[in-house]
Amino acid sequence: MAADSLARIAVATPLVHHITNVVVANDVANLTLAFGASPVMAAAPEEVAEMAGLASALVLNIGTLSSATIDAMLLAGRAAAERGSPIVLDPVGAGATRFRTVSALRLLAELPVTVLRGNRGEIGALVGGGKMRGVDAVGDEDPRTVAEAAAAQFGVVVAVTGAVDVVVGKDIAPLEVRNGHPLLGRITGSGCMATAAIGIFLTAGEDAATQAALALAAYCRAAERAGAGGAGPGTFRARLLDEVAALRQKGVGGLRVAPA
Amino acid sequence: MAADSLARIAVATPLVHHITNVVVANDVANLTLAFGASPVMAAAPEEVAEMAGLASALVLNIGTLSSATIDAMLLAGRAAAERGSPIVLDPVGAGATRFRTVSALRLLAELPVTVLRGNRGEIGALVGGGKMRGVDAVGDEDPRTVAEAAAAQFGVVVAVTGAVDVVVGKDIAPLEVRNGHPLLGRITGSGCMATAAIGIFLTAGEDAATQAALALAAYCRAAERAGAGGAGPGTFRARLLDEVAALRQKGVGGLRVAPA
Amino acid sequence: MAADSLARIAVATPLVHHITNVVVANDVANLTLAFGASPVMAAAPEEVAEMAGLASALVLNIGTLSSATIDAMLLAGRAAAERGSPIVLDPVGAGATRFRTVSALRLLAELPVTVLRGNRGEIGALVGGGKMRGVDAVGDEDPRTVAEAAAAQFGVVVAVTGAVDVVVGKDIAPLEVRNGHPLLGRITGSGCMATAAIGIFLTAGEDAATQAALALAAYCRAAERAGAGGAGPGTFRARLLDEVAALRQKGVGGLRVAPA
Repeated sequence: MAADSLARIAVATPLVHHITNVVVANDVANLTLAFGASPVMAAAPEEVAEMAGLASALVLNIGTLSSATIDAMLLAGRAAAERGSPIVLDPVGAGATRFRTVSALRLLAELPVTVLRGNRGEIGALVGGGKMRGVDAVGDEDPRTVAEAAAAQFGVVVAVTGAVDVVVGKDIAPLEVRNGHPLLGRITGSGCMATAAIGIFLTAGEDAATQAALALAAYCRAAERAGAGGAGPGTFRARLLDEVAALRQKGVGGLRVAPA
Repeated sequence: MAADSLARIAVATPLVHHITNVVVANDVANLTLAFGASPVMAAAPEEVAEMAGLASALVLNIGTLSSATIDAMLLAGRAAAERGSPIVLDPVGAGATRFRTVSALRLLAELPVTVLRGNRGEIGALVGGGKMRGVDAVGDEDPRTVAEAAAAQFGVVVAVTGAVDVVVGKDIAPLEVRNGHPLLGRITGSGCMATAAIGIFLTAGEDAATQAALALAAYCRAAERAGAGGAGPGTFRARLLDEVAALRQKGVGGLRVAPA
Repeated sequence: MAADSLARIAVATPLVHHITNVVVANDVANLTLAFGASPVMAAAPEEVAEMAGLASALVLNIGTLSSATIDAMLLAGRAAAERGSPIVLDPVGAGATRFRTVSALRLLAELPVTVLRGNRGEIGALVGGGKMRGVDAVGDEDPRTVAEAAAAQFGVVVAVTGAVDVVVGKDIAPLEVRNGHPLLGRITGSGCMATAAIGIFLTAGEDAATQAALALAAYCRAAERAGAGGAGPGTFRARLLDEVAALRQKGVGGLRVAPA
């Protein structure tokens, strides 16, 4: 099924609109290209609705948010909703500051978000209780419990990523993804790229939870290949793009997605 | 002639002022260093005129434009014009949204742009008719026809890049550049870096069209070397900087620039 | 002593709050992770004080400053001061434009900056007399003289980096760091990363001048290892992160820190 999605993406080269943070903008654009999709980054209020209206998916990331960016996300999100395009939200650092928590909750309240992706601290903070330290989770919540609470509270598909990723959907059993590599935790933006991968895969299949799990598994399988051989984080970061771009040729054998 | 320009750049280390997008700012600064020039990025209204007044070239890129950035570009452009410095404009995504098209046309109308560089969709949109999908061209216009129309309409040198690059100047025959590598289309910012290369080369020779063609050829020749051996896009991106930095040592044999 | 600091950082994974420029944000975040610390980037006025109040160090960098960013730096700096966290300031391009010089002086006047790091042109401009060309020093001031003048004038620890780095502290003799590699001058952000390294090391020891010198030595030692073998700048940039991340395993033999 991941192979089908990758093939569909390669044929359609869907336009994916990212409103993301300045730290990872380059990585996210390059990841989108590596998956065979076409990235566009636009955050000006004068154009976000028009751009979102052209795109097949909208990815919102509050990593370096400002009040102007949140306004742009709301404009873009409404246009995406009108077009029927999926919306993915990455509430980077929710729980670390009140501004991040409130902004993420506002986006969830005002937009028909399709998939919410974060670590267990971020998602936990949105349902009340997650512990954050900067942009990293530090509590010991069970990721599945957190994901299920958020799915129930917000009525969206929720992906909580960590050592094991958990995806809680609407009409299917929760899914676990057991692919991954420790070096993902040693580079900035690995979570933001996971969110982008979900946005790309949502253009290629119907069930959002399934697509989210496949996206995480394919991305993390590429990370496993990139990390084999013991590279340091700088080399790993370059190889990760290489391996994502090679997924269609090398195949997606070894994906570890299963009911939780 | 490209070798002469590279040598002149290495001796003068010209200061090149970029007002560019947040996605490629790092790549563009590193490319400028790799060519032997000195990059400076500044976009605050309080300082852009002063910075442009110190620089040997100004490179404007609307990839993540805002109304504040356009205002800064106008201030910087006027200072560059007063100093007699060349100005290069990259109308990223013109045609995709009205804000981008209008902003690019305004910069062309109010500033003495030296070289306009874009893909055939972007340049086509500025003369009326180009088809865009996000930041990629999707129509089937002939690049030379598009470049000639833009050169006539705006009175500037125009470089339309794609599988073959076409440069239309004022007093010389149109030039074609046939260097390049498919991986340039698989990384973000390859067009923005081409634009930056033109800005750097404009500091090292008189005829703008010739310098633009040489810049594209040298940059694309480095890409050919970087792509040899079949790297993926992440590794290619690092090697591209390596090969640009090695152009003086390895020489610029193999440049394919000719009258169109 | 550098080994002790690296070990302490690895155990504590201190949260380091960066308000930095858009060109190097990704590099700085990845460097922070490579040293074993945890980066957080936040610049919105609604949250900077809260974020700085959570962090163990605050790193301020004016590379792509705006008046809004300077205001955010002041808010964050006051919160850091209240918490007793060290503050590092990188006055990128001070001397190149009046806005940069004035903004850096304002931050020095209004915040209890712990360490000021720049090249001899930038620091010289702040004490009156440094010569800048864009973001590079072009005068021939003696770095130690410049550092001592700034330390006396502003009452802070000053690190002037270049071929040889000089650190002037309060209660100890000036220190020289003789590690480094020419490729550091061929990539953008090498100075910004040096500043970030200082911020990280300030969380792991008492004397600010000693910690600054150790940070520069460890970072530059990693650069020596990354540059061995003759890589180009693109590959060097990736390897630099690899080698910083490997410092604990490979050890910090070869640090060249001595009284000036």
